[in-house]
Amino acid sequence: MNERAWIRRLRARAAGAEYLTRGIGDDCAVLRAPPGAELLVTTDLFVEGTHFLRRTAPPRALGWRALARALSDIAAMGGSPLAYFVSIAAPEWACGHWLYDFYKGMAELGSRTGAVLAGGDTTRAGTLTCDLIVLGHSPAGSALRRDGAKPGDAIYVSGELGVEAKRRRVRFEPRLALGRYLRENRLASACMDLSDGLAMDLSRLCEESDVAAALVSPLPLAKGVASAKALTHGEDYELLFTAPARRRVPATFNGLPLTHIGVITAGKAGRVTLDAKPLAARGWDPFQS
Amino acid sequence: MNERAWIRRLRARAAGAEYLTRGIGDDCAVLRAPPGAELLVTTDLFVEGTHFLRRTAPPRALGWRALARALSDIAAMGGSPLAYFVSIAAPEWACGHWLYDFYKGMAELGSRTGAVLAGGDTTRAGTLTCDLIVLGHSPAGSALRRDGAKPGDAIYVSGELGVEAKRRRVRFEPRLALGRYLRENRLASACMDLSDGLAMDLSRLCEESDVAAALVSPLPLAKGVASAKALTHGEDYELLFTAPARRRVPATFNGLPLTHIGVITAGKAGRVTLDAKPLAARGWDPFQS
Repeated sequence: MNERAWIRRLRARAAGAEYLTRGIGDDCAVLRAPPGAELLVTTDLFVEGTHFLRRTAPPRALGWRALARALSDIAAMGGSPLAYFVSIAAPEWACGHWLYDFYKGMAELGSRTGAVLAGGDTTRAGTLTCDLIVLGHSPAGSALRRDGAKPGDAIYVSGELGVEAKRRRVRFEPRLALGRYLRENRLASACMDLSDGLAMDLSRLCEESDVAAALVSPLPLAKGVASAKALTHGEDYELLFTAPARRRVPATFNGLPLTHIGVITAGKAGRVTLDAKPLAARGWDPFQS
Repeated sequence: MNERAWIRRLRARAAGAEYLTRGIGDDCAVLRAPPGAELLVTTDLFVEGTHFLRRTAPPRALGWRALARALSDIAAMGGSPLAYFVSIAAPEWACGHWLYDFYKGMAELGSRTGAVLAGGDTTRAGTLTCDLIVLGHSPAGSALRRDGAKPGDAIYVSGELGVEAKRRRVRFEPRLALGRYLRENRLASACMDLSDGLAMDLSRLCEESDVAAALVSPLPLAKGVASAKALTHGEDYELLFTAPARRRVPATFNGLPLTHIGVITAGKAGRVTLDAKPLAARGWDPFQS
């Protein structure tokens, strides 16, 4: 098989997608937005050595994961995926079978979630670097945002924290159904997905909302994971959301626990405490000068 | 300055953009499509060592170029840019001033062309790898495509071929105005931009349209560039288009030459000849197995 044959196969898969007028094979993909919808756009880098090690997982599982990370951002807005685009800078070792299987992993999750491959780019590189772009949609004005948390709102998180730190679970389910449930029922005043750890991500949500947060233990930690690790390790891909105190948030959604972990306060924007002790929110900053 | 301060500055620039409901700072950007429009989406990788060498140009010029390459795809569809997204995997040497200047170069071209920075991603990597995603729009059903060329159509190219091969012109103007002119006047039956050289790109257009092409010299080569080099070097970012024989295509558009270089024929799909001799269309193929 060569690139042309492969592209023909990918195109055949996307044929008939409702809002895709023109997919792979042109300078741009051409799409329509569903009536009354706003578009959601996210881009997510997946880099060998930074986000994954090729020897630790088969390409099919890694392809799934690459797309799942981007779909998690669509979930966090309460949206539904429409199309995805894959830009891959590939080293020699990835060309051929590895790359096919990587695309197959993405296609598996894509077909489960309604996302069709609509384009992308490929080039040569020394390190495998993959950029996943997902276009999603939600009814105009309804997308869940980070900037709506108010003092007094309760803070919730889905699932368990630190599962990733414990065992490398490569394939995971982006919380699309939960995000849509929160949006449709207007339960969440703010929402985001957990990619860099609760400490950092909650601080970001609070900064956007111009509020502070007070967490109270016990947090829903995965069994056997230390609290410090669970709070900073990242890659949880659970949803973190706030809800007005008067709203009743169920204890589970489709079997997934939704745990009340604290309250939004009127303190310094972005400040987060756990049992009244400050939690440091630090990470890599490419713009530090 | 740190990432938060920098992001505040970038957000301030995008404030008030007409179709952008929510830009940088959330899990996804939220956009509306202009009324009656279709959306155009393109992604374009720009990799150190493959597409540029950092020592040969200042970061501001490279930022301009990274965005210009992606805007060239919007031009090829006859579209107008709406928003762009930048995913950067950055090595240590790029963090800080280099990265600021790179973003400034993009912003310069963005503000000239109506594209606002609406999001993206950043991560660590050994090699600078940048993915530029541009969302554009055109009235529904009007986008210029690669698959409309018919036997008997005349083939045209804008500007000169091989300028890049001659001198490293880092900043270039994407042919947005020409693309819109061709679309608005329904002049082109098919169109694409030249990124991989006339030989390869014309073959792709012909394959999409299920036709062949016969080129006739002299081609509009840049002074001092050998024909073989001009045909295969790539990075011209001119528009290649076909027009029905009865349509009068002007010799210039805003001073830019539009040269008649051949004719579409009913031969084997993708076959291209120059003065009746076959032109080979070869390039890197990451899917070869």
